[in-house]
Amino acid sequence: MLLAARCLVLAAVVCSSGLADGRLQAAGDGLPSWNAGPSKQAILDFVARTTREGGVDFVPERERIATFDNDGTLWAEQPMYFQLFFALDRVKALAPQHPEWKEQEPFASLLKGDTQAALAGGEKAIVEILTVTHAGMTTEDFEQIVRDWFATARHPTTGRPYTEMVYQPMLELLAYLRANGFKTFIVSGGGIEFMRVFAERVYGVPPEQVVGSSIKTKFELRDGKPVLIRLPEVDFIDDKAGKPVGINAHIGRRPIAAFGNSDGDLEMLQWTAAGPGPRFCLFVHHTDAEREWAYDRKSHIGQLDKGLDEAGVRGWTVVDMKSDWNVIYPPRG
Amino acid sequence: MLLAARCLVLAAVVCSSGLADGRLQAAGDGLPSWNAGPSKQAILDFVARTTREGGVDFVPERERIATFDNDGTLWAEQPMYFQLFFALDRVKALAPQHPEWKEQEPFASLLKGDTQAALAGGEKAIVEILTVTHAGMTTEDFEQIVRDWFATARHPTTGRPYTEMVYQPMLELLAYLRANGFKTFIVSGGGIEFMRVFAERVYGVPPEQVVGSSIKTKFELRDGKPVLIRLPEVDFIDDKAGKPVGINAHIGRRPIAAFGNSDGDLEMLQWTAAGPGPRFCLFVHHTDAEREWAYDRKSHIGQLDKGLDEAGVRGWTVVDMKSDWNVIYPPRG
Repeated sequence: MLLAARCLVLAAVVCSSGLADGRLQAAGDGLPSWNAGPSKQAILDFVARTTREGGVDFVPERERIATFDNDGTLWAEQPMYFQLFFALDRVKALAPQHPEWKEQEPFASLLKGDTQAALAGGEKAIVEILTVTHAGMTTEDFEQIVRDWFATARHPTTGRPYTEMVYQPMLELLAYLRANGFKTFIVSGGGIEFMRVFAERVYGVPPEQVVGSSIKTKFELRDGKPVLIRLPEVDFIDDKAGKPVGINAHIGRRPIAAFGNSDGDLEMLQWTAAGPGPRFCLFVHHTDAEREWAYDRKSHIGQLDKGLDEAGVRGWTVVDMKSDWNVIYPPRG
Repeated sequence: MLLAARCLVLAAVVCSSGLADGRLQAAGDGLPSWNAGPSKQAILDFVARTTREGGVDFVPERERIATFDNDGTLWAEQPMYFQLFFALDRVKALAPQHPEWKEQEPFASLLKGDTQAALAGGEKAIVEILTVTHAGMTTEDFEQIVRDWFATARHPTTGRPYTEMVYQPMLELLAYLRANGFKTFIVSGGGIEFMRVFAERVYGVPPEQVVGSSIKTKFELRDGKPVLIRLPEVDFIDDKAGKPVGINAHIGRRPIAAFGNSDGDLEMLQWTAAGPGPRFCLFVHHTDAEREWAYDRKSHIGQLDKGLDEAGVRGWTVVDMKSDWNVIYPPRG
């Protein structure tokens, strides 16, 4: 499942380690997990058009910016965002240092194992949980905490490590775009420092190409040693109308291709589509209740409603997970 | 002066267009504008150590992050920051639409040509000037305004375009590092969207590798067209203790080399130096009153005081502009 971080080949060859199975090599187009059909064809056509030197739609390499949402687009997001599982596990780990949590919501319910009651407090409860689990330490300590968690945490229904619940077809797509001179960015509502811990190893996306939600940090000298302290204060929410803002702040160039799965990605796709020249916008539509989950217009997570309408009107690509993908997750590591 | 944006050679060869003169080729080390001496030697040694595979100080390419301050490090900053010249010119250009400015400071003094009186209002005056000149338009309109300004504006004492007042030795250093697998970033107190207009063409640094101060932006649909509006509200000041914060937010990885010229860069150098493994920190010391400007501990711009002390104690490289550089600016374009 681990993608090599760098891929210098110019041909449409997937570079992979761990994934270097015969299937990948045999397909030849770098997208063996994508079934033949309009979604795959649209991807191949767009890449061919934008990379053909001298063609009317040719785009120079420096402008081949592709942005990907994470939750629900590159990895699964059910039954709740994986970062929330991390936060809940942290509450349990920190509980011995906080005897007062036994009497205090949302922690009391959480510690009794009643996640639903804990989250009934809505956004306020979630912010409280995120604050105690994501702030108060140095950036280096936080990175280590997240790294340690990924090493042992398992998804409640599949039993797999969370970083193995990434979508094999999307891993291939990331590598395929990079092999064709695209620079791939993550632009997600998830925490930027949370995602950076695994994005390079799992997606081949280096930390400087990860854009996400953030809390403020503060530079300090502690015993003469410079550290950055994570503060319990939201800095930026990289979701919905925040996505074009985050793209502009971090990338400073409009993407020519954008990939999402929910209404939270709609503004990113609109912003991408509104530039001149060739553009590519894609929604992953979760239609596979058997191999993954099926949800869209009425889901409490990853709702895809307005986006589905707009994709129809504008001719954006909508991936039908069930029929377009012959594999969901990578082979078990 | 224009550096090619991409340089794929792995050898220490400067890639340039416009600069491709015999002098560069002859020197062979990619740093012909640097006189032999301890500063140049320190650079060559660091790059040799960190790129020698199998050596104890070898650093993988993905971690070869180098950050550069802009004002006073990559281009000149006297008699005042170039972005302030832009703002003053904009006030004049906008004055016909603002008859009230004739009676209202700091604009009244500015329009009478008395910059000193206008700036006597200190930070408040500067913020007022920056607000009316940098906010209220879309990001695309702002980019065009800056681009148009650079096309005709000239520095008051040299008469050169501002983008030709970059330091030739630093252009060579940027290209030299990139040719050795380093990723070069700008980390400056200057405006991020102001610098992005010229950073790729002039420095070979793409927009996504520019970190700077910013104002907030807001996504809107105007007549169905998505735009980002620049708001009159500071988002982030990328100076002093803000530099490590900006580095962490944008790059997410600690640099192994950092280049500055003032106390505003001290925290960036401290943050860089505090990581494990080989580290390189450098201050450009403005010592050349004849070819450029000479200033340090008591300057009102680009003060270098604490930084000079700390560089001495910690053995950081301090470039003596007068003796270390045989050329200051590139040949006239």
